[in-house]
Amino acid sequence: MVSAQDRIEPVGVVRCTRSAPDDDQWDRETAFVELLPPFSARSLTGLAEFSHCLIVYLFDKAAWDPSKMCRRPRGNPDWPEVGIFSQRAKDRPNRLGVTVCQVLGVDGVILHLAGLDAIDGSPVLDIKPWMAEFGPRGSVAQPEWATELMKGYW
Amino acid sequence: MVSAQDRIEPVGVVRCTRSAPDDDQWDRETAFVELLPPFSARSLTGLAEFSHCLIVYLFDKAAWDPSKMCRRPRGNPDWPEVGIFSQRAKDRPNRLGVTVCQVLGVDGVILHLAGLDAIDGSPVLDIKPWMAEFGPRGSVAQPEWATELMKGYW
Repeated sequence: MVSAQDRIEPVGVVRCTRSAPDDDQWDRETAFVELLPPFSARSLTGLAEFSHCLIVYLFDKAAWDPSKMCRRPRGNPDWPEVGIFSQRAKDRPNRLGVTVCQVLGVDGVILHLAGLDAIDGSPVLDIKPWMAEFGPRGSVAQPEWATELMKGYW
Repeated sequence: MVSAQDRIEPVGVVRCTRSAPDDDQWDRETAFVELLPPFSARSLTGLAEFSHCLIVYLFDKAAWDPSKMCRRPRGNPDWPEVGIFSQRAKDRPNRLGVTVCQVLGVDGVILHLAGLDAIDGSPVLDIKPWMAEFGPRGSVAQPEWATELMKGYW
């Protein structure tokens, strides 16, 4: 029996300049994460020594539809039907988002970031430092549709 | 008010050759993720076209101690005290693990992986394809203690 007994509890909240869940051009936005009590500035000690971090957040406005196990990304008829675990659609089981962001600076309980693709108000579930050794090892390959999809993303 | 109303529900389970939460030498292990119902093989369609994927899993044997906002990684006196969000310790808020793994192959509801640092039985909460564009942008930097810590990790 596999169980995940805990509720997920936000450790912070995304504050940024985008409030609608549009797909592309995320680099136009500025963003920060504000920690929520009981998380103090001490919990971010040393993070500014890392160039990047992982933000794990909740797509809290999204909904998982179990009939969508397999679908064309963004409904694009030019792209193949792929499984929900082969795409990064926000309407997914557990609605978790994970993004590698650039750390711009830490100011108390505020973490300034570049490259966070989350809308204003998104609950933040974890922050992890990015260590080079946790990057992909070996050569990276992906299907053509993924490269096309990402062209306008940032 | 920020809320995360859902419970997290496992979408799969880790099966691997390590059952104790030891810190290092994860590349000695072989691992796969087995999807749990209602997730079918269709949900993995197309994943084998990616060289790598992200596994989001739960450190279900770990516990977050709120008095540990800031501590020395692995208790090593040679390393500085850093915040829980500046290290990857498993005893963390929400107990989420995120690892970039190599996709070895997909066989029905079984996803064979290399480089998964989760123990046998860990609940899997999400699987995402790794797209090169989601990697860190700009140069990557990290403190010396992190590089030292990672030396024996894989």
